[in-house]
Amino acid sequence: MDYSKMKPQEVKRLIRTGEVDFQTSGMCDGYAQANLCILPAEYAFDFLLFCMRNPKPCPILEVGDVGDKSIKSMAEFGDICTDFPKYRIWKNGVLEKEVTDITDYWRDDLVYFLIGCSFSFESEMIEADIPVRHIEMGRNVPMFNTNIVLNSAGAFHGNMVVSMRPIPENLVVKAVNVTNAMPRVHGAPVHIGSPESIGIKDINKPDYGDAVTINEGEVPVFWACGVTPQNALMQTKPYFAITHAPGHMFITDVKNSNLKY
Amino acid sequence: MDYSKMKPQEVKRLIRTGEVDFQTSGMCDGYAQANLCILPAEYAFDFLLFCMRNPKPCPILEVGDVGDKSIKSMAEFGDICTDFPKYRIWKNGVLEKEVTDITDYWRDDLVYFLIGCSFSFESEMIEADIPVRHIEMGRNVPMFNTNIVLNSAGAFHGNMVVSMRPIPENLVVKAVNVTNAMPRVHGAPVHIGSPESIGIKDINKPDYGDAVTINEGEVPVFWACGVTPQNALMQTKPYFAITHAPGHMFITDVKNSNLKY
Repeated sequence: MDYSKMKPQEVKRLIRTGEVDFQTSGMCDGYAQANLCILPAEYAFDFLLFCMRNPKPCPILEVGDVGDKSIKSMAEFGDICTDFPKYRIWKNGVLEKEVTDITDYWRDDLVYFLIGCSFSFESEMIEADIPVRHIEMGRNVPMFNTNIVLNSAGAFHGNMVVSMRPIPENLVVKAVNVTNAMPRVHGAPVHIGSPESIGIKDINKPDYGDAVTINEGEVPVFWACGVTPQNALMQTKPYFAITHAPGHMFITDVKNSNLKY
Repeated sequence: MDYSKMKPQEVKRLIRTGEVDFQTSGMCDGYAQANLCILPAEYAFDFLLFCMRNPKPCPILEVGDVGDKSIKSMAEFGDICTDFPKYRIWKNGVLEKEVTDITDYWRDDLVYFLIGCSFSFESEMIEADIPVRHIEMGRNVPMFNTNIVLNSAGAFHGNMVVSMRPIPENLVVKAVNVTNAMPRVHGAPVHIGSPESIGIKDINKPDYGDAVTINEGEVPVFWACGVTPQNALMQTKPYFAITHAPGHMFITDVKNSNLKY
């Protein structure tokens, strides 16, 4: 099955029936994918404010009304409870279980947040002939904790998590420009060069994901990462939360090209 | 007193002491000004979501934590309770009174919203040699109710209010580009040309503000207007709300040029 050439509505039909319950990376070429956080309404204002105050790591794509599980702007006929291949149920910040459908967990006081994902800007980089090392190596992107303090909101606070891609020196400006045009999926880099300046001790030992080769003449370039909001969320230990399982994203009906300025 | 050449902190000192309790239009050349809505926390999530879903009429500049009256990102040492020249107190959607200080009205459950204002993009238009008719004529900008339905959120809904500026045909593209670069203060026009297409019956009879002359060879150009969020807010009749008095804005410490892409 070549999922890369399928349309989002076709794959989501397979996700709803349970035929697809695996990672969505590489599916539906050209269409944006999204991260998920679901919280009780009592946390919703603070979490939305936290995302707005930290737009690079937490770029909001869509937020539901209190109790509304339908997706309106990022997809047609979207249901937040069935349209991700896999979900994680959290209680007091502890992972309780993974499920493929959260209809039975949905409540009238829950609010969903769809957050942009770097899959979108990577496909634009490749389109612009900028190499994306971890894709070339068939690995997960290397991610690091940093000393970059986030703007807090209510109970939500923390430091930024970044992803790193080694870029040839002569393509750094192009990489900045290509990603700057996509602020709804993390936008321009937050740092270029010296890992130490942002508190990263060993560029070959990522805190999440896999290490990648940095060649002679390449610069490590750091982008704000979508792991950031989930990290901040788990640090506050809400009594109940639902997220997607890593890599098991929502495939929107919106093309990456429509997320540009 | 020439307020246009003064720095924001100088004028705000005079506002705090009550020496300045009049309109801020034209003060502190080059610095952005902001609209105000204050609501009890129970409305805060829905109102923030409403603004996010309608970014052109309701561009958020800063939102406070619940109970926090200090302004952090748009000014140094800002106090939401003292730094506007005049406020309006609303109960159940009805104007109760105007005051110059709301310290006595502040409560631990209130949330403030600072919203972008078209003063910023008008100064950029003038800088780019695009005429701004109502300023030339010494009048208030003409504003109109439209048939453009807003995206609702919780109890908040309504139609867009637009402001109109007549632009010479050969400058329309330039006016689009100049304002498009400033999405945090309403951004690009929402409509160009035919008033009827957006439900405006008589371009010479604005619903708010003053009529202005449209010369031969000029096109009416319409921008989303900051009256929109206050209109939507008043339609839902919250039991308590505070806004600025029209024209009596907050002068930020942020230059218009820093609100550009």
